[in-house]
Amino acid sequence: MTKLATLRIDGTTRAVRLDGDTHVDLGYADLGAYLAAGSPEPAADAARYPVEGADFAPVVPDPSKVLCVGHNYRNHIQEMGRELPSYPTVFPKFADTLLGANDDIVKPAETDALDWEVELVVVIGTQVRRATEEQAVAAIAGFTVMNDVSVRDWQFRTIEWTQGKIWDSSTPVGPYVVTPDEVGGVRPSLQVTTTVDGRVMQQDDTATLLFDPVFLVRYLSTIVTLRPGDLIATGTPAGVGHARDPKVYLVGGETVVTEIAGLGACTNRVVKDA
Amino acid sequence: MTKLATLRIDGTTRAVRLDGDTHVDLGYADLGAYLAAGSPEPAADAARYPVEGADFAPVVPDPSKVLCVGHNYRNHIQEMGRELPSYPTVFPKFADTLLGANDDIVKPAETDALDWEVELVVVIGTQVRRATEEQAVAAIAGFTVMNDVSVRDWQFRTIEWTQGKIWDSSTPVGPYVVTPDEVGGVRPSLQVTTTVDGRVMQQDDTATLLFDPVFLVRYLSTIVTLRPGDLIATGTPAGVGHARDPKVYLVGGETVVTEIAGLGACTNRVVKDA
Repeated sequence: MTKLATLRIDGTTRAVRLDGDTHVDLGYADLGAYLAAGSPEPAADAARYPVEGADFAPVVPDPSKVLCVGHNYRNHIQEMGRELPSYPTVFPKFADTLLGANDDIVKPAETDALDWEVELVVVIGTQVRRATEEQAVAAIAGFTVMNDVSVRDWQFRTIEWTQGKIWDSSTPVGPYVVTPDEVGGVRPSLQVTTTVDGRVMQQDDTATLLFDPVFLVRYLSTIVTLRPGDLIATGTPAGVGHARDPKVYLVGGETVVTEIAGLGACTNRVVKDA
Repeated sequence: MTKLATLRIDGTTRAVRLDGDTHVDLGYADLGAYLAAGSPEPAADAARYPVEGADFAPVVPDPSKVLCVGHNYRNHIQEMGRELPSYPTVFPKFADTLLGANDDIVKPAETDALDWEVELVVVIGTQVRRATEEQAVAAIAGFTVMNDVSVRDWQFRTIEWTQGKIWDSSTPVGPYVVTPDEVGGVRPSLQVTTTVDGRVMQQDDTATLLFDPVFLVRYLSTIVTLRPGDLIATGTPAGVGHARDPKVYLVGGETVVTEIAGLGACTNRVVKDA
């Protein structure tokens, strides 16, 4: 069983591996550095920290890039009556956009249209460019969960979504990076769910992804070098607040849980900006 | 006179300042680190390198973010018969996308629609979030030149431009960061030009920017923290190859010069991917 995380400890961060009811220190400041070093075994006398009370940082706090895919759940596309796209739609986030798995989501004062999006995230383990199928499979260190929190009013101010997707400290990602062998391989079938105050808002299965994790590593690495710790968010299923009738947005006070079976959950309170 | 650059020297990089016919070593590996340190004066015995034969790295090789603006030259918008937009259109690049000012642009084998876009770039000098007018002015360390090389066929595969804008090692930026006092302030009026094999393709003045540098620092810092070394590309004027009739693309063998008066030029050969 391999579940990796980056924890906040004593004002810094540490890469750890889950081992029973403890987290074993892997000898690196975060999972990006650990993956870049080739994921070595921890020292025999490595520090251990209790799981209880763990403070999760973003699984990779400083990825060189975060690439996100839209329009990727077959069920969602079909129920909307759209044609299946020929290519993935790609948009960015940056390191400054990320939050830890249980951090508060602060609703910016500048929006009244804050929304959720549960996503399966591919975590890159090895550097690849123009990856073959085999290289792409080998480059997938594991999977984690993202709540691709979106500022819809800014997202749709122009034809480009970027400005609604890169808000500072908006996007929980974690808690763990789980290796593919734990979840049935590099094209897993896992239930994805979002609840808001306990009400199920999104529910689907990652098996219905139109562009699967291996395809996305190949496609995106055609464009740009993927590096250890880079994150690929694979898109969200039906049920976002913006697509509901009437629309539902996060206003502050809610608890949002984005969960993927076998990977864990991001559990976040929404609080208003001061 | 303050012109700053990041040079490749002996297999590493160094931040330098132009001083006559030499570059003075500023004591940091690159301009991102130098700006983050508060732009201190170089040591009295700092190393000096001849300007002749200088090998320019991207002015900031590893910015935390590169934010680019589309639809921003008033003349271009008006000649296209479009209404002036209410908000800037924003899209990303990543550190891996950047090239030095005189590096070859390698045309990827995967495209037949490689295009140029000269742009004035704002280089951030101090960390800001939700900057006031005064903070935004103070946060502008200087200006440089970018050729926002675009892979048009991929850019227009979907509604989001990102996948046509982030190709690896595609985007020259440099050669120098020039401080605002050198060019008439933080809202400069500078001639911008692109030539391809000597033929003028783009020509305009940065005074016609709809969203000016100070506005953009304020707008973007509302969304996300801007850090020393971050780059804001302010958009391109009329005359890109994709908008010509017939369309003109870079196929390999050309020399593209993107120049801004007072800042300098990126001069790049286009070569075919092996």
